[in-house]
Amino acid sequence: MMENETASAPKEIDQKGGFVRQTNAFTVPFGNGQDELPAQAGRYRLIWCPACPWAHRTVIVRRVLGLEEAISLGTVSPMRPLRPHVDWEFSLDPDGVDPVLGVRYMSEIYLKSDPDYAGRPTVPAMVDLQTGTIANNDYFKLTNYFETVWAPLHKENAPDLFPEHLRTEIEALNDVIFHDINNGVYKCGFARSQESYEQAYDTLFARLDELEERLSKQRFLHGDFITDSDVRLYTTLVRFDAAYYAAFMTNRNRLIDFPNLWGYVRDLYETPGFGDTTDFEAIKKHYFLSITITPSDTREGRLLPKGPDLSVWRIPHGREALSGHASKFLISTN
Amino acid sequence: MMENETASAPKEIDQKGGFVRQTNAFTVPFGNGQDELPAQAGRYRLIWCPACPWAHRTVIVRRVLGLEEAISLGTVSPMRPLRPHVDWEFSLDPDGVDPVLGVRYMSEIYLKSDPDYAGRPTVPAMVDLQTGTIANNDYFKLTNYFETVWAPLHKENAPDLFPEHLRTEIEALNDVIFHDINNGVYKCGFARSQESYEQAYDTLFARLDELEERLSKQRFLHGDFITDSDVRLYTTLVRFDAAYYAAFMTNRNRLIDFPNLWGYVRDLYETPGFGDTTDFEAIKKHYFLSITITPSDTREGRLLPKGPDLSVWRIPHGREALSGHASKFLISTN
Repeated sequence: MMENETASAPKEIDQKGGFVRQTNAFTVPFGNGQDELPAQAGRYRLIWCPACPWAHRTVIVRRVLGLEEAISLGTVSPMRPLRPHVDWEFSLDPDGVDPVLGVRYMSEIYLKSDPDYAGRPTVPAMVDLQTGTIANNDYFKLTNYFETVWAPLHKENAPDLFPEHLRTEIEALNDVIFHDINNGVYKCGFARSQESYEQAYDTLFARLDELEERLSKQRFLHGDFITDSDVRLYTTLVRFDAAYYAAFMTNRNRLIDFPNLWGYVRDLYETPGFGDTTDFEAIKKHYFLSITITPSDTREGRLLPKGPDLSVWRIPHGREALSGHASKFLISTN
Repeated sequence: MMENETASAPKEIDQKGGFVRQTNAFTVPFGNGQDELPAQAGRYRLIWCPACPWAHRTVIVRRVLGLEEAISLGTVSPMRPLRPHVDWEFSLDPDGVDPVLGVRYMSEIYLKSDPDYAGRPTVPAMVDLQTGTIANNDYFKLTNYFETVWAPLHKENAPDLFPEHLRTEIEALNDVIFHDINNGVYKCGFARSQESYEQAYDTLFARLDELEERLSKQRFLHGDFITDSDVRLYTTLVRFDAAYYAAFMTNRNRLIDFPNLWGYVRDLYETPGFGDTTDFEAIKKHYFLSITITPSDTREGRLLPKGPDLSVWRIPHGREALSGHASKFLISTN
């Protein structure tokens, strides 16, 4: 069974009060090898929460690549049940049960997959419909599997988000984005000491300053076309002013204060797969009313901020001029 | 004795979950009448907290009018002791005791003034040094007393912040500023229901939109010169982005998003008496670590946001062009 935690000794907090995210438990890769997971249409169900940036990236890539028919989608609520452990719940579905998997909580799937599982149940998770167990919950690599192993199931003329000639560069930047930005905001928000918080805050804004400079000269992180790195940066940036700025105290500046990052994220937002999978209401509910890593933090009686003003997302971004191409996507030649 | 409160039935919350600020207990006016408080140099000690907007306004006016010699100043910490009741503490002073009054807590002064006092001890308070009791804690009227009854003790060529020909207009606007803005942010932050919060939020931003328009055509609220109304608006605006935006969820926009209000408040900030009495560290500590109306809300383990970036306060405001006068102040002819 999953352990109950206590406020005095929360998991995922180091001795200095810093947040150390748990590792993924289900990491067998997708691939064509004997011990790998086969990419098969209709075989898996992807579980996500629209609030969660780690899950959001998989849903963006699924849509951009046209994998929606091949991989079905289940959605958990941004409001997390906390007792007896932090969980995700299918409370948005009729009767509160996922219509395909027939379960109420993510923890049911995790415990069916591993009866000794003691971590937080997380999304995204690719659930194998043959067994009802988790095939893979490796949020760091899932989009790369979608972009490569799953290529035979892509729609016609799908973009290449992970071009071979850029992979080393993309992976290097993805590491930085992960540690300092994607997880960096969580290190700010979940820190239990002023020192750990300030360290994460300084690193986060130093990286944003670097990317602000980088995006002054090019439309996307690796040039004229959207890549996997842009998807990863987008899911944190789009949540920045609506959630992290206040809820995680990442408040040196808002995103809107960085002219290039702010134009860049609006450029992505208007792109099919990005803005149309972005749910600000779910994001706000989750981060202000329900975010926690410990069941002792009930957040009872909290109210939902009415702002910020979202009309700013419709301001034209004017970043086309930075690119030499009419399309934002490099079309795959596979 | 002051009552202990419970989380389930906090004082100052109405049946709809809205915040209803307690009324002031010590409201005998300053004046020259028999039953009024005489304005006398050295007779009173003003107690303030740099975090508190209600107290801040009295300290601004005291400095602008040159009443610093006549009225001494005692300072309580922005970190409030909460048990057994919400209090203010002289913990910044040597040995934690006000050097003139010899007390550790504001509640001591309140209970000496009225043994049955059951409200929150508040600042500002003018303490009569002859008795060690509160002469007046009427934050709404104190600046007006300083501007009128205390005129004989003003410095030479002191500004007239409450000119006779504008008093009706100033008082009408002060009422609006009080209900919808000064106290409006508290109605947002202390609301216990989504409905009460949203109502206060809508009213607050509607008023800010009105004042934004008003300040597009004139330098200050009543024309070319700083008046009592500007002091009142300043103390809320200067706290807006650093505190209320996140801590009180007044987050439709930041102040920096209103071009006229933002230039206006920087114009005031650079004026002696305003910026030099503004303590952002104290403000942040109070609103993020210590703000509450109920002792049950301990805010244990909270961290202090490192932002926002305060360098923006030094950006030139360029509002001189709106005025036909070289000075921001109308010099008193008394």
